[in-house]
Amino acid sequence: MIDLSKIATKPPKGTDKGDVKALTEQYCKRIGELNEIMRAQRKHSLLIIFQGMDGSGKDGAAKNVFKDCTPFNLSVYAFKKPTEIEFAHDFLWRVHQQAPAKGDIRIFNRSQYEDILIQRVHGWIDEERVKKRVAAINAFEELAQFDNNTTVLKFCLHISKEEQEKQLQERIDEPEKRWKHNDGDWKEREFWDDYMRCYSDAINWSTIPWTIVPVDDRWYRDYVIAKKVCEAMEAMDLAYPQLPKK
Amino acid sequence: MIDLSKIATKPPKGTDKGDVKALTEQYCKRIGELNEIMRAQRKHSLLIIFQGMDGSGKDGAAKNVFKDCTPFNLSVYAFKKPTEIEFAHDFLWRVHQQAPAKGDIRIFNRSQYEDILIQRVHGWIDEERVKKRVAAINAFEELAQFDNNTTVLKFCLHISKEEQEKQLQERIDEPEKRWKHNDGDWKEREFWDDYMRCYSDAINWSTIPWTIVPVDDRWYRDYVIAKKVCEAMEAMDLAYPQLPKK
Repeated sequence: MIDLSKIATKPPKGTDKGDVKALTEQYCKRIGELNEIMRAQRKHSLLIIFQGMDGSGKDGAAKNVFKDCTPFNLSVYAFKKPTEIEFAHDFLWRVHQQAPAKGDIRIFNRSQYEDILIQRVHGWIDEERVKKRVAAINAFEELAQFDNNTTVLKFCLHISKEEQEKQLQERIDEPEKRWKHNDGDWKEREFWDDYMRCYSDAINWSTIPWTIVPVDDRWYRDYVIAKKVCEAMEAMDLAYPQLPKK
Repeated sequence: MIDLSKIATKPPKGTDKGDVKALTEQYCKRIGELNEIMRAQRKHSLLIIFQGMDGSGKDGAAKNVFKDCTPFNLSVYAFKKPTEIEFAHDFLWRVHQQAPAKGDIRIFNRSQYEDILIQRVHGWIDEERVKKRVAAINAFEELAQFDNNTTVLKFCLHISKEEQEKQLQERIDEPEKRWKHNDGDWKEREFWDDYMRCYSDAINWSTIPWTIVPVDDRWYRDYVIAKKVCEAMEAMDLAYPQLPKK
């Protein structure tokens, strides 16, 4: 059983930043190549889920790791507060619509997990409903896997409370980051321990495994994610379609 | 365990057509009234699924039973052969999008069950995938129930092979029914026994129960469905919203 509060948010000791950055660069290039084959073959799909506290670097991870991919078949969907019409449906209704088509990579910036994180931390739903939602999430992810050749990769971007403060403060201090500032983020920070507990449960209750990414150093974040994504894509049987034999 | 091939397609002996039609009329009126409260309250939703062989009267059931409802919050969605974009997703992708919003009644003319009926009868998917799809369907219906106050009512419109022939022949003989004629329906008819077996399995593997409707006599079909729908709506805690207390 995973307890996030006991897991490192920094790279293992002795990790060489230069080496890691060179490797990351290679992974990114290869992801770009494989993405192009996915697009041509239209057989496999890839769903990337980024979850993490505010300031954990979800945007940056999407930007850096997939920098060599084209937008033809790669897209990001950021889940915000549900709209009125979304609230009038089950919590997976809006999520399912955004599932990737065959041939596509879809990145979720936040996801269905918010519905058992923020909603649970604040007690907006009871524990019975949490359990049922967990089962529904597992069923949804398995469905994508078995019925649409979707590889589901889930990343928990794990930041320390100190590093988060630094990140949130930068959003106040630096003009080009100010658009990301939100008083609410500082408020949510007060529920830190509850979030760690609920994140840990979400990870432990998943049938499809998570990757926990230490993100205090952004270069290490990119490395862990790029490696995982690249390996998962190499494991697909990707091939350019050829002319039919005469 | 249900074996459809052993279940009657005609009303029980001694059923009085006049009495039944009068009762049906009362149920329909009441459904109309309750539908209006659902619309005002926007708390409950109702998903009606009609499955049945060609000519079993799915259209007619929708038309007759809900005749006193307004289209403000009642709609029918007919699932046809999947489009290219639908085929590029898991089988529930297009279905989930059509789930009713709170306050609405949504009628599915055919449904997710086609994906374990026609596809199974013709061997387009293997039995392992059938089992997984059954689990996914159960999870999907339970999700609608627990997370969106959706009452899910599933009707298997059960017709005899003889009556079906009569219905399909009418589509050739009667000018105003001719638009419904399809050579493919006569072809599917050859797989009758396989369909009965697959329908029986679909019913037996469901967690949310089905109502099997004998449809050889259309007045009895309407009665069984109207009664079930009306009782299900009466069981919701429907009430017009009132002005807030001062």
